[in-house]
Amino acid sequence: MILVNGVQTTTIAVTDRGLQYGDGLFETIEVHNGECPHWQRHIQRLLRGCALLGINAPEIDILQQEARQLCKDQSKAVLKIIITRGSGGRGYKTPENPEPSRILSIHPWPAHPGSYYQEGVCLHLCHTTLSTQPALASIKHLNRLEQIMARREWDDPSIAEGLMSDASGQVIEGTMTNFFAARANTLLTPIISHCGIAGIMRERIIDAANALSIPVTETALLTDDLYTMDELFVCNSIIGIWPVRKLMEQCYPAPGALTKQLQDYFANNT
Amino acid sequence: MILVNGVQTTTIAVTDRGLQYGDGLFETIEVHNGECPHWQRHIQRLLRGCALLGINAPEIDILQQEARQLCKDQSKAVLKIIITRGSGGRGYKTPENPEPSRILSIHPWPAHPGSYYQEGVCLHLCHTTLSTQPALASIKHLNRLEQIMARREWDDPSIAEGLMSDASGQVIEGTMTNFFAARANTLLTPIISHCGIAGIMRERIIDAANALSIPVTETALLTDDLYTMDELFVCNSIIGIWPVRKLMEQCYPAPGALTKQLQDYFANNT
Repeated sequence: MILVNGVQTTTIAVTDRGLQYGDGLFETIEVHNGECPHWQRHIQRLLRGCALLGINAPEIDILQQEARQLCKDQSKAVLKIIITRGSGGRGYKTPENPEPSRILSIHPWPAHPGSYYQEGVCLHLCHTTLSTQPALASIKHLNRLEQIMARREWDDPSIAEGLMSDASGQVIEGTMTNFFAARANTLLTPIISHCGIAGIMRERIIDAANALSIPVTETALLTDDLYTMDELFVCNSIIGIWPVRKLMEQCYPAPGALTKQLQDYFANNT
Repeated sequence: MILVNGVQTTTIAVTDRGLQYGDGLFETIEVHNGECPHWQRHIQRLLRGCALLGINAPEIDILQQEARQLCKDQSKAVLKIIITRGSGGRGYKTPENPEPSRILSIHPWPAHPGSYYQEGVCLHLCHTTLSTQPALASIKHLNRLEQIMARREWDDPSIAEGLMSDASGQVIEGTMTNFFAARANTLLTPIISHCGIAGIMRERIIDAANALSIPVTETALLTDDLYTMDELFVCNSIIGIWPVRKLMEQCYPAPGALTKQLQDYFANNT
């Protein structure tokens, strides 16, 4: 089921700048027993994105009402929200008084093997790099060709995710996940001020680490640094935490001790 | 009038990856007396883009037939073609056998003042940079937030275009144009292998320069180099050539001698 500006439909105007230029934002939200447990965090990021792109923010009350309508009968599902700048004429110039579009859709909970969570996943190291663009970093905008190109690099079903670096060789994130490493009982995660997405699960993990008194540092991590790490994991709002058991022929304990501690924390605190 | 996969409509599926991720390409084409005089060049670029993104190329015969249907009664207009990967499920992974979408729309010829062509334009120097991404450079894809952010930097109607640089300070192109400079009777234009769009008018100008025996060099141009130039101009398929009369408080002859020679060449050869 899809709601576009509150109306049940399956289509959107061709003139919508979301289609014309990727001029918008999105959120991918866990639905559990008819509710979105992390709604506030998603809305905060969405509003930050709107402010950055200069898109009129949607009325949050209306958005919430529409989300409830879609989620109420779902025990476990994914809610996707797209906000675009709305329709406009040809050309990059922002229309005078655009009416932003709200597109809410509900999707089945993905059927990943339980072993991904329990025993870890193999990662591909992507050749496609993430470009450096501080003006757009951290928000979840609709310009996603880099992720698409990276995801096209492998078709082997035994590889669950691909790890992306910037042009200088700093590891940033997975195609659909954020990335963490652990060394000497400290959690490390890439700086995402120049590229990458500020994931909701990433944010929750940093909060959880603080609650558990696990030191956590945002830092520059080079690909070669990963060989020296004790454990690795990837995360997002839907998959939670997947330990990494193999990357570039190197094997890691999966789950490692800190990874397991965080998995257990979320299993007991959601 | 809009044709989506040959059907007259104003909408497209919400599930289209053009909307979801900017997963597609576009062309903006001059229509003159019912014809697209530079059709072949546009189609070549579109096919190059499809190959690079791994999108199944549209049937060119069908595309041409649809273009004719839209253009036949237009004396002067703009034809826009969007090709997307088509509809798919949630997630970056390319769907198994996607049916690409063809979206053709006809637009009025823009009413720019004649003085832009005859006496030149003022350019804004944009703070928004173009990110370096060799994997996507030169093609006209749908991820255009950088151009939108740059175009939002000015609202002064006396400024006709904004000039964008990469993060290292190399001038690349305008928000909607390519860029040329002239010095010592040589034409210079930025290298666009790491960012920027391979414009059709840019290509035609390089061909024209060769025909006119004007030396033309693709090179790295820093912002500071522009102070040493004799003349500047911007170009695209719709505006043709606009001489630059002012950039960053510096004035240039508009049109300069080479610019005028090229304008005259195109006036006599189209």
